[in-house]
Amino acid sequence: MKKQKILNDPVYGFVNIPYGLLFDLIEHPYFQRLRRIKQVSLTHYVYPGALHTRFHHALGALHLMSQAIEVLRNKGADISEEEANAVSVAILLHDIGHGPFSHTLENTLINVSHEELSLIFMETLNEQFDGALSLAIRIFQDQYPKKFLHQLVSGQLDMDRMDYLTRDSFFTGVYEGVIGYDRIIKMLSVAGDELVVEEKGIYSIEKFLVARRLMYWQVYLHKTVVAAEQMLVRTMQRAKDLVRAGVEVPAPENLSCFLHSNLSGSDFRQRRDEWLGYFAGLDDYDVMSAIKSWMRHDDFVLREFSERLINRRLFKLEFSNDPFPESYVSEITRQIKAKYPAEAIPYFLLMGTESNSAYTTFKDEIKMLMKNGRVLPWSQVTDQVQPALVTKYYLGYPKGE
Amino acid sequence: MKKQKILNDPVYGFVNIPYGLLFDLIEHPYFQRLRRIKQVSLTHYVYPGALHTRFHHALGALHLMSQAIEVLRNKGADISEEEANAVSVAILLHDIGHGPFSHTLENTLINVSHEELSLIFMETLNEQFDGALSLAIRIFQDQYPKKFLHQLVSGQLDMDRMDYLTRDSFFTGVYEGVIGYDRIIKMLSVAGDELVVEEKGIYSIEKFLVARRLMYWQVYLHKTVVAAEQMLVRTMQRAKDLVRAGVEVPAPENLSCFLHSNLSGSDFRQRRDEWLGYFAGLDDYDVMSAIKSWMRHDDFVLREFSERLINRRLFKLEFSNDPFPESYVSEITRQIKAKYPAEAIPYFLLMGTESNSAYTTFKDEIKMLMKNGRVLPWSQVTDQVQPALVTKYYLGYPKGE
Amino acid sequence: MKKQKILNDPVYGFVNIPYGLLFDLIEHPYFQRLRRIKQVSLTHYVYPGALHTRFHHALGALHLMSQAIEVLRNKGADISEEEANAVSVAILLHDIGHGPFSHTLENTLINVSHEELSLIFMETLNEQFDGALSLAIRIFQDQYPKKFLHQLVSGQLDMDRMDYLTRDSFFTGVYEGVIGYDRIIKMLSVAGDELVVEEKGIYSIEKFLVARRLMYWQVYLHKTVVAAEQMLVRTMQRAKDLVRAGVEVPAPENLSCFLHSNLSGSDFRQRRDEWLGYFAGLDDYDVMSAIKSWMRHDDFVLREFSERLINRRLFKLEFSNDPFPESYVSEITRQIKAKYPAEAIPYFLLMGTESNSAYTTFKDEIKMLMKNGRVLPWSQVTDQVQPALVTKYYLGYPKGE
Amino acid sequence: MKKQKILNDPVYGFVNIPYGLLFDLIEHPYFQRLRRIKQVSLTHYVYPGALHTRFHHALGALHLMSQAIEVLRNKGADISEEEANAVSVAILLHDIGHGPFSHTLENTLINVSHEELSLIFMETLNEQFDGALSLAIRIFQDQYPKKFLHQLVSGQLDMDRMDYLTRDSFFTGVYEGVIGYDRIIKMLSVAGDELVVEEKGIYSIEKFLVARRLMYWQVYLHKTVVAAEQMLVRTMQRAKDLVRAGVEVPAPENLSCFLHSNLSGSDFRQRRDEWLGYFAGLDDYDVMSAIKSWMRHDDFVLREFSERLINRRLFKLEFSNDPFPESYVSEITRQIKAKYPAEAIPYFLLMGTESNSAYTTFKDEIKMLMKNGRVLPWSQVTDQVQPALVTKYYLGYPKGE
Repeated sequence: MKKQKILNDPVYGFVNIPYGLLFDLIEHPYFQRLRRIKQVSLTHYVYPGALHTRFHHALGALHLMSQAIEVLRNKGADISEEEANAVSVAILLHDIGHGPFSHTLENTLINVSHEELSLIFMETLNEQFDGALSLAIRIFQDQYPKKFLHQLVSGQLDMDRMDYLTRDSFFTGVYEGVIGYDRIIKMLSVAGDELVVEEKGIYSIEKFLVARRLMYWQVYLHKTVVAAEQMLVRTMQRAKDLVRAGVEVPAPENLSCFLHSNLSGSDFRQRRDEWLGYFAGLDDYDVMSAIKSWMRHDDFVLREFSERLINRRLFKLEFSNDPFPESYVSEITRQIKAKYPAEAIPYFLLMGTESNSAYTTFKDEIKMLMKNGRVLPWSQVTDQVQPALVTKYYLGYPKGE
Repeated sequence: MKKQKILNDPVYGFVNIPYGLLFDLIEHPYFQRLRRIKQVSLTHYVYPGALHTRFHHALGALHLMSQAIEVLRNKGADISEEEANAVSVAILLHDIGHGPFSHTLENTLINVSHEELSLIFMETLNEQFDGALSLAIRIFQDQYPKKFLHQLVSGQLDMDRMDYLTRDSFFTGVYEGVIGYDRIIKMLSVAGDELVVEEKGIYSIEKFLVARRLMYWQVYLHKTVVAAEQMLVRTMQRAKDLVRAGVEVPAPENLSCFLHSNLSGSDFRQRRDEWLGYFAGLDDYDVMSAIKSWMRHDDFVLREFSERLINRRLFKLEFSNDPFPESYVSEITRQIKAKYPAEAIPYFLLMGTESNSAYTTFKDEIKMLMKNGRVLPWSQVTDQVQPALVTKYYLGYPKGE
Repeated sequence: MKKQKILNDPVYGFVNIPYGLLFDLIEHPYFQRLRRIKQVSLTHYVYPGALHTRFHHALGALHLMSQAIEVLRNKGADISEEEANAVSVAILLHDIGHGPFSHTLENTLINVSHEELSLIFMETLNEQFDGALSLAIRIFQDQYPKKFLHQLVSGQLDMDRMDYLTRDSFFTGVYEGVIGYDRIIKMLSVAGDELVVEEKGIYSIEKFLVARRLMYWQVYLHKTVVAAEQMLVRTMQRAKDLVRAGVEVPAPENLSCFLHSNLSGSDFRQRRDEWLGYFAGLDDYDVMSAIKSWMRHDDFVLREFSERLINRRLFKLEFSNDPFPESYVSEITRQIKAKYPAEAIPYFLLMGTESNSAYTTFKDEIKMLMKNGRVLPWSQVTDQVQPALVTKYYLGYPKGE
Repeated sequence: MKKQKILNDPVYGFVNIPYGLLFDLIEHPYFQRLRRIKQVSLTHYVYPGALHTRFHHALGALHLMSQAIEVLRNKGADISEEEANAVSVAILLHDIGHGPFSHTLENTLINVSHEELSLIFMETLNEQFDGALSLAIRIFQDQYPKKFLHQLVSGQLDMDRMDYLTRDSFFTGVYEGVIGYDRIIKMLSVAGDELVVEEKGIYSIEKFLVARRLMYWQVYLHKTVVAAEQMLVRTMQRAKDLVRAGVEVPAPENLSCFLHSNLSGSDFRQRRDEWLGYFAGLDDYDVMSAIKSWMRHDDFVLREFSERLINRRLFKLEFSNDPFPESYVSEITRQIKAKYPAEAIPYFLLMGTESNSAYTTFKDEIKMLMKNGRVLPWSQVTDQVQPALVTKYYLGYPKGE
């Protein structure tokens, strides 16, 4: 008789959380913090339902992991109770290192990737829980012989991806992005020490890759979403620039200390307890609260960005398959100059690229288990030719108002 | 050729927003503020998906209103373009007066109901839009002869209720609370100047009333939700009490001015522009941001509540059909006294009642249009006996930890 | 490693069928016959999607049974592998005795209830499978000490009911009839030897009872459905009457032998192998094929009914809470007489009653397991007063054409 | 005030049927016949929910047509009431010429394509309805200047396809096959006289093509479905062969006359009223009823196929990307010969090919309306390289039992 807590998840129906280590980790303030970090940053400015959090995503990925474990065991894969628990912990915590607004501010507030921060969180928790996370950490770092366990956490068909594509399409309402997560999971198997997909899952994989591609261009790289997120990045950069120039920029304490520093991973680790304290207190609320207060700041750029973000007066953003012509960029620059102070130019012209490849053959290919027992890379099995990496150029600027 | 903007709503699929006044109102900062006010306060502490906002709800209710108008017109109801637009504006703005955490803090931060504040917002917007909202305001206040227009905005079967029950059950994942909003809307008609339901909709109404009841006890009055929300109320009350006692309580400016005042509706109206400025800047972010900063406050009660709210260490809450026995309350009080400073007692013992009546015959009954053309109140048509008002007593306190 | 077959069920997603006895029973021609018997008879004349079969329903109920077993075991209920298998067999075969058009023709073609026929099928299969069904039969007949196993097959909250309400609302598109089968199953428990529902499931039960009621009046007893089904009954009765009068009535062999006989249960059992052979060959196709051929029959009544059923020219049917006044019936009768031959009257006037009680306290009440450990009947727990048995009178006749 | 009938469709919710010509056509016995013709033949032997009919599909396509008309009109396309009605009639009747088991028996019972038969039905109805279908027939035959109207009925993105892909994925439960019909319809527009898709619909189209491909291999060409359908074809062929050889083969009259003939389109038209009378009476019930009676036929091949089809003892079928080696085929043939009479061989060895191309550039490309106003064929817009035509070889035979 296993004790467990039942959660309502609009995506999966009922989700069971077993009591024990997993439950205790969820109750921990480090994990509860994820309730205050939106999964897809400012995407809700385009898709108003997309307010779901990293907390919900992590629980969803945990739920799918328990299904995957059951499927693999039913097919004869050898997964001990200890391994099942460890891989569940690894998926639960795989994103715990995300900071406010997830990927958007990932390299702006702190020069440490969210994966490295996740590892730092896990190590710290491992000390607090007397080593109970050691195996989970080995799996997370791909240092465990049964590679398929790591692949369930991080790989082409990991439970992270299964959940976020499913969840993001659900909450945005972009139902065309729905993937057949349940079917794909049912088709998973283990060959050697690797995660493979049974041959009959071929069309599900094809559909999965297209749905993922669709989600990229329709949601994650939607022009208005990119505009809003780039504006958020610039706002934070301006705040840091002002701080560096000695201007006072009020902000909640947890945020303020990151505006005043420029940490690398080794800086962070050297004074881990102190910095983790700040970081574990930092969330979307600090950032939004600061931006709201900056609507009355003396600095034009900071004030303008803040006011625009809060009231959703977003820049116009254009995508192009080719670099924008020099002349076009000059013209836009000229228009900005005509209306805004000189210092605004470098912030007000959003230029860059976004790229997406739904699938590459370069590394980490999906492995198909053929009916004859052979294992082949996806690219040799499909007759669906995959697009090469697609890169698009963007140019954003204040609309003529 | 009507220009319109198409939004993805996970609940209804595509939602059309016509350009023109409605679109301009949605773009207004007053309305955009609703993006930062959660529809169901701290319900997400129990149902993690329930992060949807008043913004999304208002758009959803607008969407249903356009369906209702079409249905009623198809049945011959006389609704001019101007009336259709006005009733749409009225439903769009019906909740614009909600403050942070909606109902939870409704009487805590300011002594003005959200309905009165909605009216103040509308009047102010009416000035800004040169009287374009005048008819909408008359309908909102039930001062327009075609009563059914008001009933579509506020009544037993209004579009507000249709949307919030649908939306709340969707985002909580409590699918048992789903109502047949589309069928009910298809069954609406007008008799005299009143909104009625065709007789064949009888079972849909029955089901609607039960679903609503279920949502109350399973979601809105879930014991953990009530615990969290009562703790939030006490936190704000403590902050105000401290301010009154001269203790410094840091908070974002928009919040701070409400902690330092105790406004009535007439106070508010007397200096409307000033107060509306503060109120229109106030949202969930200010409250959460303040609470986060109070986790390090000197005052034990404020600090303890703040830390518990942020880390979700909620009080235990019990419901009972009868008042709790004196002896039981004394025993709980004794336990609190043993562990916490004396000043904490009045805050740490949560006592009160919650009640729900899915339906009453006292006022504003659902009217059924019988096949023979007569209009009868619901209570005379159904053989489903309605429960009288149900009241439950609750008692909440810190768990033995 | 359990071998199993995976089926796509639009209702539940993936359904697992374990290989072994259950799989072999499904493959048996007796069970395959259920593919040719619609679950809800002529309901598709009103709800065109409702073409699902007894076959699909039986698999769905089997699926829910496996969920219920898992839930009960997780709560400590003692269910051996043998018992789990037997109760699964019992639910799989609980409806195997249904004849063409399920309930509609239940007492018309043969005077044996479908439950008794199910038992006869099970006994025959038990012989074929060397006694492997003995325990299933005991459970089916409520002759096994662990009463809750029988209650899972046949009781207020059995898996039959859970599936058919869910499935019928799905395929009709009457989504208001959807019940929270998954939540109800999660709330099941065993107290003593009885099936009970945990107290917190109270609103789910309430909702379940209302949804069931709604399905009765909106689907099962929809006036056009009743008209079509009563016409089907009269058609078969006329065919039998003609046969008895010596008129030749062509029909497929399996059907013909039932038109020429009037079997009781004991008749059937006396020559079981012969009659079961005919009955196991009989399905919707025989009945429809006969009716199609009767569109050219010499007999007016048979021809008229057949033509009307095939081309969906259905009688008009009225429901009333009170018996129809003598004068009204006379008037209708007069109109029929004016247009149709005298022999048609007794067939063309459809009179009768339909009744429904979503719940009675008379027998077999739902048992609630209260938090304090007591077991109470539902009627003492709810504050939702249940409607008494509701009976409606119907009157059907050819529309003025 | 438009009178209309409301239908529950589990796929789309409520579907409105306007009274008038469309309603009268639906009531006509020709159209009611479609209630007795399954949309996807024997697919339900693999996906038990797939029992939906051509009747339901035609209503669904009609529903989508009304949405498409509204979208196009809102974008300024000139569609008169008469044209709207005609294109609706055309889509309603586009499949009315389908015979029993739709495509499966299309060239077996009669040498006339279902499109030609649909036209014959429409012409006959046009006579009955005094020319009211003339414009619909012109559109159906692509003889009307506004080409986009024909393209809505028959083209790469017609409402036929939108509905059948949606409906078939719904009732099979293969949710990965779901297409974004609502989004695609919202993206439709008219340029010149052609149907085009707005540029922003690019990913929806991509997804649509993949979903369609997936449906082909996972559903329509599922190996067990192909086996069952090929067995059905062989059964009918054997019946016809026996008839030609003078053997008596009992069957319902409507079917019998087609077993005894071998009609071409011109034969059919020469004696249209007579043949249409038979054909309009022919449906799945006749075929299944005949097969059931043939389970006791003297001829081994007919009996064996019939018994296997009814009891679902299907042949094993293998797919291969290359032709099966001569040696393998010989070996299978040898095994059949060893067990079955010589006359069975040509029937018992199922050999053939199935092919699918989700999209070709050869004819009738999807046209994209770019933001700059140009119209480009899909193949020039996408970076998703399309697979060429995919052909697979199949080999089917009785399993070793």
